[in-house]
Amino acid sequence: MQILVAGLGLIGASIAKTLKKNTKHYVLGWNRTQTVTDKALADGVIDETGNLDDLLSRADITIINFYPEAIVPFVLENRDKFKKGSIVTDSCGIKTRICRALEKESFDFTYIGAHPMAGREVSGYDASLPTLFDNASFICTPTDAPKAKTDTLVELAKEMGFRRTVVTTPEHHDEMIAFTSQIAHVLACSYVLSPLAPQHPGFSAGSYRDVSRVARINGKMWSELFIANKEPLISEIDDLSDNLMKFRAAISNENRESLIELMDRANKIKEEIG
Amino acid sequence: MQILVAGLGLIGASIAKTLKKNTKHYVLGWNRTQTVTDKALADGVIDETGNLDDLLSRADITIINFYPEAIVPFVLENRDKFKKGSIVTDSCGIKTRICRALEKESFDFTYIGAHPMAGREVSGYDASLPTLFDNASFICTPTDAPKAKTDTLVELAKEMGFRRTVVTTPEHHDEMIAFTSQIAHVLACSYVLSPLAPQHPGFSAGSYRDVSRVARINGKMWSELFIANKEPLISEIDDLSDNLMKFRAAISNENRESLIELMDRANKIKEEIG
Repeated sequence: MQILVAGLGLIGASIAKTLKKNTKHYVLGWNRTQTVTDKALADGVIDETGNLDDLLSRADITIINFYPEAIVPFVLENRDKFKKGSIVTDSCGIKTRICRALEKESFDFTYIGAHPMAGREVSGYDASLPTLFDNASFICTPTDAPKAKTDTLVELAKEMGFRRTVVTTPEHHDEMIAFTSQIAHVLACSYVLSPLAPQHPGFSAGSYRDVSRVARINGKMWSELFIANKEPLISEIDDLSDNLMKFRAAISNENRESLIELMDRANKIKEEIG
Repeated sequence: MQILVAGLGLIGASIAKTLKKNTKHYVLGWNRTQTVTDKALADGVIDETGNLDDLLSRADITIINFYPEAIVPFVLENRDKFKKGSIVTDSCGIKTRICRALEKESFDFTYIGAHPMAGREVSGYDASLPTLFDNASFICTPTDAPKAKTDTLVELAKEMGFRRTVVTTPEHHDEMIAFTSQIAHVLACSYVLSPLAPQHPGFSAGSYRDVSRVARINGKMWSELFIANKEPLISEIDDLSDNLMKFRAAISNENRESLIELMDRANKIKEEIG
């Protein structure tokens, strides 16, 4: 297949590198900033670039790696340019708004939302890695896409070496991502915003390091993701606040039994589920 | 010097192993459960064990590694048994209650509170490591101890290979530990107590793994530590809740500027301070 990777930042370029490393597909590449595309070509991360219209008309699969708000407009603006019968997908971390907007449309191609679940604290082409997805899950949220098209995309993810593939609804994806990824970032940021954070050197061990790691964050991108997933994320913030308040009350009342019960429950979940 | 390690769980046995690996001191060992002491002796983790009174009377430095509530009673019960002019210290994660209780007393030895800052998600003798403190800070909180005694203890920590030593007040220690360690554990537990946690496999990446790691916790011990450090910890929970509510409000109002400002500030702290 000819696969077009549109957007060659951290995720897009890592996808291109993974395709080159683990599959035999021919990798077309395109990036809004031409210097990045040139670099990817020079580095052998993509096999070919060129005029966007031409690339879209040739690609059997187009993978769009833009900020969340740019995806639907890109698909709609180029709706007549994608190859007939091809698959168009994206790598954005929220799915409901995008998938539900695009499923209303009638296209000559099949759009299938996807989320290759990996990231780094750094962004951009230079941060991309051929190993970024080695232990990652590939989630796809096909809504009403034909099963054969979904199968093609899932097969590609397996070929690329994703450790696990999950097919689910956009809504379930977004609810789970609010928990496993978004709230973790909100929480890490809220943590390091404590007035004591600047004094921590000398007093910190592994727990500070791990809990605060994802406070290294691209605010521009994550603010879009948070707002696009508003309801599930607020629900997670509320659950987290409720649990914090249970700890606060137990500590304040010096209720050791209640504290032990909360921690034993957390420990059990972590032990059983990981 | 003859150094007595009293309590041979995760921390005590790791201290004994570190003393044996990195120093030439003679390591006496004692544990309430005799089978553990026997194992430590057989493993060469300690050089000698014996009757507690005898060990206390010989040790130039006694390092007490018990649960927080057991430390003050142990020191008071054995006040006439410690070697005259010796140093008695402990490894407990909170310092104000212990140090302020003991500084009121008049002893023939010098008590200096300490906190070798390292831990694992598993506990007990079998989890101990000779490398546990390799990248750790050694904090000590001498209050009115003579400077020469504090220097001896700090020198020992350096010999043992701690990466950094900090001398401060018990109150500053406890405030910082509430931030760098205790709230991180409260937060990890509160996080995995979300109703969605059991469904996370397939939807999680590094952020879930890191933020939730320290939810593997010994509730019996940490409940004591939390209650013994009630005020600083509640203050941290309140700071964290306030920050979470700022995120919640910004997401709810779809206020992207405010979200970017919060995340940029968090990112800057993390980038500059680590």
